[in-house]
Amino acid sequence: MARNPERRTTLLDAAIEVLADEGARGLTFRAVDARAGVPTGTSSNYFDHRDQLLSQVGDRIFARLTPPPGAIDTAMRPAPGRELLVELMRRAAGRLAAERTCYLGLFELRLEAVRRPELRTQLTKVLRSDLDENIRLHLDSGMPGDADTVRVLYFALTGLLLDHFTVPELHGDRDLDSLIETVVTRIAPAD
Amino acid sequence: MARNPERRTTLLDAAIEVLADEGARGLTFRAVDARAGVPTGTSSNYFDHRDQLLSQVGDRIFARLTPPPGAIDTAMRPAPGRELLVELMRRAAGRLAAERTCYLGLFELRLEAVRRPELRTQLTKVLRSDLDENIRLHLDSGMPGDADTVRVLYFALTGLLLDHFTVPELHGDRDLDSLIETVVTRIAPAD
Repeated sequence: MARNPERRTTLLDAAIEVLADEGARGLTFRAVDARAGVPTGTSSNYFDHRDQLLSQVGDRIFARLTPPPGAIDTAMRPAPGRELLVELMRRAAGRLAAERTCYLGLFELRLEAVRRPELRTQLTKVLRSDLDENIRLHLDSGMPGDADTVRVLYFALTGLLLDHFTVPELHGDRDLDSLIETVVTRIAPAD
Repeated sequence: MARNPERRTTLLDAAIEVLADEGARGLTFRAVDARAGVPTGTSSNYFDHRDQLLSQVGDRIFARLTPPPGAIDTAMRPAPGRELLVELMRRAAGRLAAERTCYLGLFELRLEAVRRPELRTQLTKVLRSDLDENIRLHLDSGMPGDADTVRVLYFALTGLLLDHFTVPELHGDRDLDSLIETVVTRIAPAD
């Protein structure tokens, strides 16, 4: 098994692009090698089988979507409250829009997980760890609401982003920022 | 172009099953014919090309997901309010769980729409008409909240159902009914 970590990351990022562009069915070792511009056969030196590649793609997507720790600490300087929550969610959405490929890749992985129990277990693990961490941060920083506030926000933002990336004209002239403000204001209790 | 409407519906239902089981990439005329148990070549007599099949699949999914009119009228007899809304959403979710194939097919169609502008236009149209109809029913029946209440409920239920169908263990021992109650209670204003 090849061990160059940078090369592995390059291959995983190429796999995310293939997922987003071609869908899960298009994700083959050969397609990843071609996308990464490496010799055919490289991916199969890094991943035992396709399921292992898919699982590591899930981990990599979350590593890319998780903001650097400083990004949140800095934002926490104003008083925690619904207004700051809207601002934080908007920043997160800006990051997400930039990470369109990751998001589409994640949706493809979810659907692939319906057919692959091993991938479903792995995806459940990373999604749960992400949600638990968001709940912890929310409560620790004194944001309005409780754990279920964060869970319902997570549901609504998932639905909103699915629309944003797949049927962006659905909500007419409401842009992403305006929809996020609506979602947070309707779900988080007033200060 | 063949015109037997029942046969067309049979083919569309077979196409939804192929979508849910194999993903959008697996959806070929040949796969639809095989799933429907009809002679190879039948689908191509009913649909000019694959994009036309995909668009009609979108329409068919919404036709199947829309409850018969009586279902709602009967439920409206108790006073409209948050409690009734929870009850209605639970009934809807029961219908949705039974229509797992439709929901998975719809998620597959959404991702396919990223790559197919014609399908995206068509899906946007049916999703918008469904959302507008839900907003109209909500307001006409005196349910608590406004149009944005319905929009945020729609986002959250989409996210919840995506989890339910792709990573059902994510929310531990919280079952679908309990999660729906949480979502509605946090989003719809108290009576």
